[in-house]
Amino acid sequence: MNISSKLLENAVNALATLPGIGKKSALRLALHLLQRDKDSVQSFCAAISGMRNNIRFCKKCHNLSDGDLCAVCASHRREHSLVCVVESIKDAMAIENTQQYNGVYHILGGIISPIEGIGPNDLNIQSLVERVNSGEVKEIVMALSPSIEGDTTIFYISKLLKDADVKISTIARGVSFGGELEYTDELTLGRSIVSRIPYKNE
Amino acid sequence: MNISSKLLENAVNALATLPGIGKKSALRLALHLLQRDKDSVQSFCAAISGMRNNIRFCKKCHNLSDGDLCAVCASHRREHSLVCVVESIKDAMAIENTQQYNGVYHILGGIISPIEGIGPNDLNIQSLVERVNSGEVKEIVMALSPSIEGDTTIFYISKLLKDADVKISTIARGVSFGGELEYTDELTLGRSIVSRIPYKNE
Repeated sequence: MNISSKLLENAVNALATLPGIGKKSALRLALHLLQRDKDSVQSFCAAISGMRNNIRFCKKCHNLSDGDLCAVCASHRREHSLVCVVESIKDAMAIENTQQYNGVYHILGGIISPIEGIGPNDLNIQSLVERVNSGEVKEIVMALSPSIEGDTTIFYISKLLKDADVKISTIARGVSFGGELEYTDELTLGRSIVSRIPYKNE
Repeated sequence: MNISSKLLENAVNALATLPGIGKKSALRLALHLLQRDKDSVQSFCAAISGMRNNIRFCKKCHNLSDGDLCAVCASHRREHSLVCVVESIKDAMAIENTQQYNGVYHILGGIISPIEGIGPNDLNIQSLVERVNSGEVKEIVMALSPSIEGDTTIFYISKLLKDADVKISTIARGVSFGGELEYTDELTLGRSIVSRIPYKNE
């Protein structure tokens, strides 16, 4: 691609560093930004750099926050004795969007992965243990990826908490709602038979 | 979507103003930017605001430029007597990318469209007439959209230049290379028969 202006080229290269945006889309976005007035582009940049520079993390659950505590941890309506342990902020958002969960969260910031060089000390595990030891937590729900790394992390945390007076559960796994048995992968289908649940006629 | 942080929400809303980026993609981009280090995000914003604030337009052809003249107008290798008139910067880039054109450009900045309230005075038509009157232009190639607005603009410019000593041509229209006759729209196919060209056995 032949871009006549160095300034435009810099902007295109910057936009093309975003995930899922190639050179051609980046050019389209840059030309769009050029057509907007200067104030609008200024506030666009201010919103992004403001977010990166000023965002903080909740002291309790490590979620994104504008203050010391995030909205969930600060709320009196949430059940603070129920903690859902997730890998990332995105996962907490996904669970929050279901509107089915009324407890609080704990963001690990990753899962134990020796291949990627992520050990327990790189994650927010110590602060989870402290939360449990403070006595306010009654149940921990592990909502981690169904992978070897996820299972390792659950195993590691459960070992750390084996003497604590806390119930540990994991989210239910099985065939998705609307999913067809024929197209379900073997591991999921196999596990869903092994961990079958009694039929309740409600 | 439930976004816990006001700062994140601002950034997501800003990113979602870009064309083709919805709220969900914007969230993905914002979380990606949060994971990058502060310097990288700072230079990302600097590239965009630098482009918007410092970019200039070529005094001759109105294309994007970092200086008074764009690279094409400043080049001694281009044929300055051949001017291709296009609607937008994007169109000039598309023609430049074919590497088949050795003349210079003139960007109108739009086409005459009474419905959208764009008249001849909103476009860079006067400067085109001045370029022609200065005597350096021998031929003008009209490369505008094949629409009523495009045709109107060509007609208007040709009227203005009827006394000038300049040849006016339009780019060839017809069935695309690789296009199948069966799937070509009727207008294009009809016109391609009417404006048929003599067969040359080269």
